Parts: sequence; structure tokens; C-alpha cells
Amino acid sequence: MTELLDDVIAQTTDAIRAHELDRAHVFHSWSAQQLIDPMVVTRAEGAYLWDGQENKFLDFTSQLVFTNLGHQHPRIVRAIQDQAAKLCTIAPAFANDARSEAARLIASHTPGDLDHVFFTNGGADANEHAVRMARLHTGRHKVLSTYRSYHGGTQLAVNMTGDPRRWPSDHGSTGTVHFFGPFLYRSPFHATTEEDECQRALEHLEQVIAFEGPQTIAALILESIPGTAGIMIPPPGYLKGVRELCDRHGIVLIADEVMAGFGRTGTWFAIEHGDVVPDLLTFAKGVNSGYVPLGGVAISDAIYSTFAERAYPGGLTYSGHPLACAAAVATIRVMEEDGVVEHSARLGEEVYGPALRDLADKHEWIGDVRGIGSFWAIELVSDRQTREPLAPYGGSSPQMNAILAAAKGRGLLPFANFNRIHVVPPINIAESDARIGLSMLDDALADASFAQV
Amino acid sequence: MTELLDDVIAQTTDAIRAHELDRAHVFHSWSAQQLIDPMVVTRAEGAYLWDGQENKFLDFTSQLVFTNLGHQHPRIVRAIQDQAAKLCTIAPAFANDARSEAARLIASHTPGDLDHVFFTNGGADANEHAVRMARLHTGRHKVLSTYRSYHGGTQLAVNMTGDPRRWPSDHGSTGTVHFFGPFLYRSPFHATTEEDECQRALEHLEQVIAFEGPQTIAALILESIPGTAGIMIPPPGYLKGVRELCDRHGIVLIADEVMAGFGRTGTWFAIEHGDVVPDLLTFAKGVNSGYVPLGGVAISDAIYSTFAERAYPGGLTYSGHPLACAAAVATIRVMEEDGVVEHSARLGEEVYGPALRDLADKHEWIGDVRGIGSFWAIELVSDRQTREPLAPYGGSSPQMNAILAAAKGRGLLPFANFNRIHVVPPINIAESDARIGLSMLDDALADASFAQV
Ligand SMILES: Cc1ncc(COP(=O)(O)O)c(C=O)c1O
Ligand SMILES: Cc1ncc(COP(=O)(O)O)c(C=O)c1O
Repeated sequence: MTELLDDVIAQTTDAIRAHELDRAHVFHSWSAQQLIDPMVVTRAEGAYLWDGQENKFLDFTSQLVFTNLGHQHPRIVRAIQDQAAKLCTIAPAFANDARSEAARLIASHTPGDLDHVFFTNGGADANEHAVRMARLHTGRHKVLSTYRSYHGGTQLAVNMTGDPRRWPSDHGSTGTVHFFGPFLYRSPFHATTEEDECQRALEHLEQVIAFEGPQTIAALILESIPGTAGIMIPPPGYLKGVRELCDRHGIVLIADEVMAGFGRTGTWFAIEHGDVVPDLLTFAKGVNSGYVPLGGVAISDAIYSTFAERAYPGGLTYSGHPLACAAAVATIRVMEEDGVVEHSARLGEEVYGPALRDLADKHEWIGDVRGIGSFWAIELVSDRQTREPLAPYGGSSPQMNAILAAAKGRGLLPFANFNRIHVVPPINIAESDARIGLSMLDDALADASFAQV
Repeated sequence: MTELLDDVIAQTTDAIRAHELDRAHVFHSWSAQQLIDPMVVTRAEGAYLWDGQENKFLDFTSQLVFTNLGHQHPRIVRAIQDQAAKLCTIAPAFANDARSEAARLIASHTPGDLDHVFFTNGGADANEHAVRMARLHTGRHKVLSTYRSYHGGTQLAVNMTGDPRRWPSDHGSTGTVHFFGPFLYRSPFHATTEEDECQRALEHLEQVIAFEGPQTIAALILESIPGTAGIMIPPPGYLKGVRELCDRHGIVLIADEVMAGFGRTGTWFAIEHGDVVPDLLTFAKGVNSGYVPLGGVAISDAIYSTFAERAYPGGLTYSGHPLACAAAVATIRVMEEDGVVEHSARLGEEVYGPALRDLADKHEWIGDVRGIGSFWAIELVSDRQTREPLAPYGGSSPQMNAILAAAKGRGLLPFANFNRIHVVPPINIAESDARIGLSMLDDALADASFAQV
């Protein structure tokens, strides 16, 4: 009893000190430093985490959609500990068993001939290097990317990004051009059916390519299913159409699978839903559940050949970091052996889809429900007719804040972006936990809309 | 005996498979993929590593000058294992004890008021974010950086870089402008004394600033002591002069300490030798000996204030990764408790400096010896009079290749760049091992120049 109490006191003291030092010394991303009050996390397991003040939360965010296998998966933890005991690190120029095996396993799951892997530390640098490869492969400079997208925080990556995070760093000088992807719920093309949206989006892209000049365009990068920007599943045929346009004009197609890859959508890679093989595929996050920073680019034979006898002019100190690669090996093996990808797909069909559509029937605020696998968004609107967002693009609102506060009050950690809540739990979550979280979300929506009235 | 043999066979088999899979699936940085034959590393300890074929090498490279405490330091390994058992990862928005403590320890060693730490995955993204902070802090766009420098492999970072790795990605469009830093041995200013070199370099910089327009320049970034570019110690007064010019024109001074920081030069940070406090200081590598990918930006109060109530528009998924931060905490504590920084300084004064100058007396090829702490370069020339480099800028030569092969043949892993060999072993290396390596280098130079005759 005293021991238990001592434990609680020690945890609380640790949490208080962690918070103090955070406020004194840690500079947080995407934030005004003195307008935030970070919650301390002292412990996490599976889909749950604790704040050191005896509050427990069900994590419906997978952090930033990266702890695909949840927190502290024993097999990944053990793999990290074993690799740490064996060999933590080695420079990129060497060969190393953890790095080799991670590359082999990744290549065994990537579509088509994407059999060569260049490792990075995360998603942004994966995209930066993919663009460099495309530019040198084609001898062209421009890159097309979509509005409503996120490709990372470094200068080139954030300039490709199609969300407000681009604006403060955009000086119109990195050779990036944005186009509209398909998004039927808020169609930029005034379409009312999936077929029309698809056809008009392809026509639009064809025109952008024509007016930019095909011979100036090195690459087209897109998230196979856009993530933070809203989980907009492309209509059937769209990705095939994009592939066809790229082929016609010698444009390198880069699929950004940083968020959608590694089982998140119920397949190993989201682009499989479109039955398309890109020329380059970038990944990070789910590749090792983020237990150690790792990202990379999977490379087609044709682009590999460009750099077979000519040096690829790019690199980074920690390319193919053994500790990160060992975590990837363990993660992929768990996914293979435990049928995690199939589980993710089944949850989408049997749990998230039906349950979220039920919520939409109950809550006026829900204007749209979309998703697949363990990758879902509900779009909140103040008016179902006009589809007026419950918070403006790039901003927040009292109603959204109320929903998020209600969720946290009920022990649910929600992923929010502007007027949307994404349901993106660990993809190996137990069905029972998934249902608990969905019912907390239900209650939170009720709490907030009740307070509203 | 059979057991031992079995071990050897198992190791060899593992090494062969690692090599095969590497060739099939791993895309290597800065390389023509089919013109390389990566050496396998199966084991490493302290300053030594093994290739799985019973060859042992003394590592005079610290890999890419990052394993400052050598391989497999037991206290860092244990810290990683313990943190893995506790909490591998958590999103940047939270507070966490490992992250908080790492930020506190780093801030306790950075000069002046650089008390806030933004964590990244490595050096390139640290520099990218430092520039973003400077641009938003000043409202200006241009960045000055030096020829003979390296700042990383992402698009902006490689464009700031002043070595040939910039060229393939340089489209003159990222707002970077290069100037010449001081380098007496190959003075761009026709100086013959340190005093003149310093004064002329400052005059040159003053002119570049004047002609570019001070009001257009957000930041000046420099390596406090340029690393890969040649370990050129700035003459006394130079850094003070740069600081003064930056102050006069409201330019943010960014010290890139990715390679030179954390004890490499015999002080915690190399800029201390110049007795200057920069506005931003970027780090990576030595912060945790590279055991887990980590980098960051240490931020002054003034720049912190800019983002106190206005959001900093930048981030990355793994900012402040707990596993990486735990490795940093252990690394810094070992450095503090074992007097590693002092050891590094002493080796420079008593071992590397005297021994390398002795080598210069013996070997005609050595044109210049320079360095401090555990950060040394010998510059190889075909003619001491003309100072003609033994390999061209950006290239290699049969003589350089012969020296490197001879070194490896003798069991020494050398760090080479064009016509230079850098002596950059782990900074906690035993004096006896340092002396063994220096004598292998002596022998390698003799072997190669003998073969030459
Ligand atoms: C689709 C996508 N691409 C790239 C990135 C950038 O990855 P990182 O934060 O690891 O740089 C993200 C991060 O959320 C992402 O969702
Ligand atoms: C001075 C300097 N800055 C930046 C970098 C880039 O660091 P990274 O390779 O971790 O991106 C390096 C790498 O060698 C470096 O030496």
C-alpha cells in the first residue's frame, strides 16, 4: 500500500519535473511556445497512455499516425534492445545485416519493381530525396503536387505540401506547382458523382501538365490516400489515370506513403487499392511504428539504373541506421505473422465504417464519413446543406475545441485537423478497444453539441 | 574449438548474406550503386570494428565523425535498452522526461542564452529549421554561407553547402549566397599571416554583405570549425568579427556544430574557441554519438521570443524522440563524469598535434597539418612549393587511393576527402590506441609513397 503510494508520488514528481523542464527548454513544433501546455506522458502500452496524474487515455491518434502496432510492442522493444546490445550504429557506406534485412523485407512488400531502398530518418527527407532522384532521372525541375496534402517540414517538402503549413515558408522558388486532386464531398470540379469527379480531376491534371509544359515536369508527388489533409479516398480509376498521364509525359510518379503505408489502409501500401505501381514510393512512420526514427524511398529498376554507374548526389549521416532498421525488421515480421494488415482491413469494414456511419445518423455535425482500413475521417459541418465547415480551413473554432475537450475528458485522445476528426488508432488495436473509443467519441459529440444548445 | 569454428562460420555466413542483400536492396548515399562494394560490419566495440571475415579495423573516422564515444559504450547501450523498455516513442506535442532532461543537459552546455532546444532527426533538418527561424525572425530571405562547407543533404541544406555535393541540386533558387571564409594555407585573399587572413576575410564578408544588401540577409551560417571541408581553424578574432558584422546588420548568426560540437574540438562547442555566442546553434552526431538519430537547434532568448505567442511553422514527426533523447542524456552524463572533453583536448595537444607534425617532417606529401582536440586534417600535396593537391577538388587520384588502401591493409579505417586525410577518432579513445593508429598512418604513407617511386 505505502509502496503503491510511493510509486504514485514518484510518478507525479517525475511528471511535474518533466513538465517544468519542458517549459524551460523544449521548443515545440508548429506551436506558439507560450500558448501551449503540453500534457506529460509517463507511460504507454498498446493503445493506451498515462499522464502521470493517474489519467489514462485511449489513443485514437497513433500519436501522429505512426505507432501502427501501438506502444511498447514487446517484440519490437526486444529487437531494439538486442540490436542495441549488438551494434547500435554504423555509417551508411558499410553493409550491415539489420539494414540489409530491413531493405529486403520492405522490398518484398512494395508493389512492382520497387526493389531498392534508400533509407532516411523520416518522411520529409524521404520526399526530398525522391524529388532529387526524379529531377536527375528526368533532367527536369518542376514538381507537381496536390492542394490538400502534407509532405513534410523541410523547405522543399513543405513547399510541396498543400496545406497551410506551407505558407510561411513559400517563396515560390522551389519549382513546385499545385493542382487539385479529386474530393467529391467538396468537389473543385462541381461534380456530383465519383465517376464525374474522377474524369474531371484527370482532365484538370491533363490541362495543368499541358500549360506547365510536360518537358519541364520532373515528378508528380501525391499521397496515395491523402492523410492529414482529410483522408480522401481517390475514386476508382483516378490513380490509374494519373499513372497513364505520367507515362505519357515521362513524369516520375512518386507515391507518398509516409502515413498511408504499412497496413494503415488494410493493404501493405495504399496505392494497391488503385492497382498502380509508382516509380518511387516514400515511407516512414508505420515502417517501424516510429519506435526509432526511420524513413525511406523505394526505387524502381529504371531509376536505380540511372544511379548504377553515376553517383546519386545525396545522403545523410544516419541513412540505414541499424537500430532503426532492426525495429523495422521486427515490425514487419509481427505484421506478417500476426495478420495485422488483414486485421486492419477487417476493422475498417466491420467496425469503423459501420460505427462511424451510425454516428453520422445521430449527430447533425457530421457531414461526411470516409475511410478504409484503420484510416478514417469524419468531417464536421455547421450545416449539412451548405457543408459549412465547423472550423475554417487552417483554423479552429469553439465547437471543435469543445468536442476535443469532451473527448479528452472522457479518456479519448482524438486526432483533429481544422473541422475534421480522424479515427486512426493503432492498426492492431483489439476490436473491443476500438469499440470503446468509438463510443467515447459518440459521447463527446453529444456532450459538445448539448453544451452548444 | 569446434564451437569457435562454428562461430566463425556463422559470422561469415551472416556477413555474406548481409552483403548479398545489401547489393540487391540497399541504395547507398553519394554513390554509383554498381561501382561500390560495401564492406560488411558485423561487430564493433570502442574504436574497433570487425568485417565478419576476421579482419579488425581501428576506426580513425568515428564513422562519419559521429561515434564520439566509440562503438557500444555500455552506458549508452543500457540507457537505450532501459528507455526502450519504458517508452520508445511519443509525439512531439507531449512532454516527456527523456526529452525534457536531454534539453536541459544540452542547454546547460550551449554558450550564452541558447537555452531552448528544438529537436530534429539529424544535422540537415536542424539547419533547415534554423534558417526558417532566422527568416521568420528577421523577415528577410537570403542566407550567407561559406565555400568549403557542408550543411546537409536536403534541398536547402545542400544549397547552403559549399562543396561539390551542392552542384547537382543547385538551381540558384533557394536564396543562398556563398562567401569565402579564412583559410591561410590556400588563402583566397593572398594573405601570408593569420592576422592578414583574418582582417581580409572580414573585409571580404563586409563587402559581400554590402553588395547583397544587408536588409535582404536573414542569416549567416557557418561551421564554427569547418569539418569535412578541411578542418580550417578560423584565425583569432575572425568569429568575433563575424558576430560583430551580424549584429551591425541584424543578421542571425547560425553556428553549425553538427560535426564540431560535443567535445570534438576539446571544448563542448567549437565556437567557444572564438569566444562568441551565436543566435542559433545546430547540432547532431556527437549529441548522442549517433546511437539513435538525433539533431537539433539551440535557440537564443530573442528568437525564442519571436515564437512565444506566434506559432513556429515547422516540425517533424520524430521531434524530441524519447529513445534518441535518452541516448543523449547518457552520452552527456558520460562526457561530464569521465572528463571526456578534457581528454579530447589533451589528446590534441599531446598526441595528435605532435605526432602529425612529426609525420609531416617525414613525408613529403604532407603539405599542411591543422587541427585541435580530436579534429585533425593533413593536407596532401604533390609539391610542397606549389601546394598542388594530391587529388583535385571534388575528385580522387591514384596516390590518394594508394594511401587509403595501404591504411586499410594495415588495419586502419581512414577518413578521406579529396586530397586530405582527417584524423577524427572517437574522442574518448585510449591514448595507446590513438598512437597505434598514428603509426599505422605513418606506415601507410610510407607504403604508398614507396610504391609511387
Ligand atoms: C503523407 C506524409 N508525408 C510526409 C510526412 C513527413 O514526415 P516526417 O514528419 O517524418 O518528416 C508526413 C508526416 O506527417 C505525412 O503524413
Ligand atoms: C557540419 C555539418 N552540418 C550538417 C551535416 C548534416 O548532418 P546529417 O547528415 O545528419 O543530415 C553534417 C554531416 O556530416 C555536417 O558535417
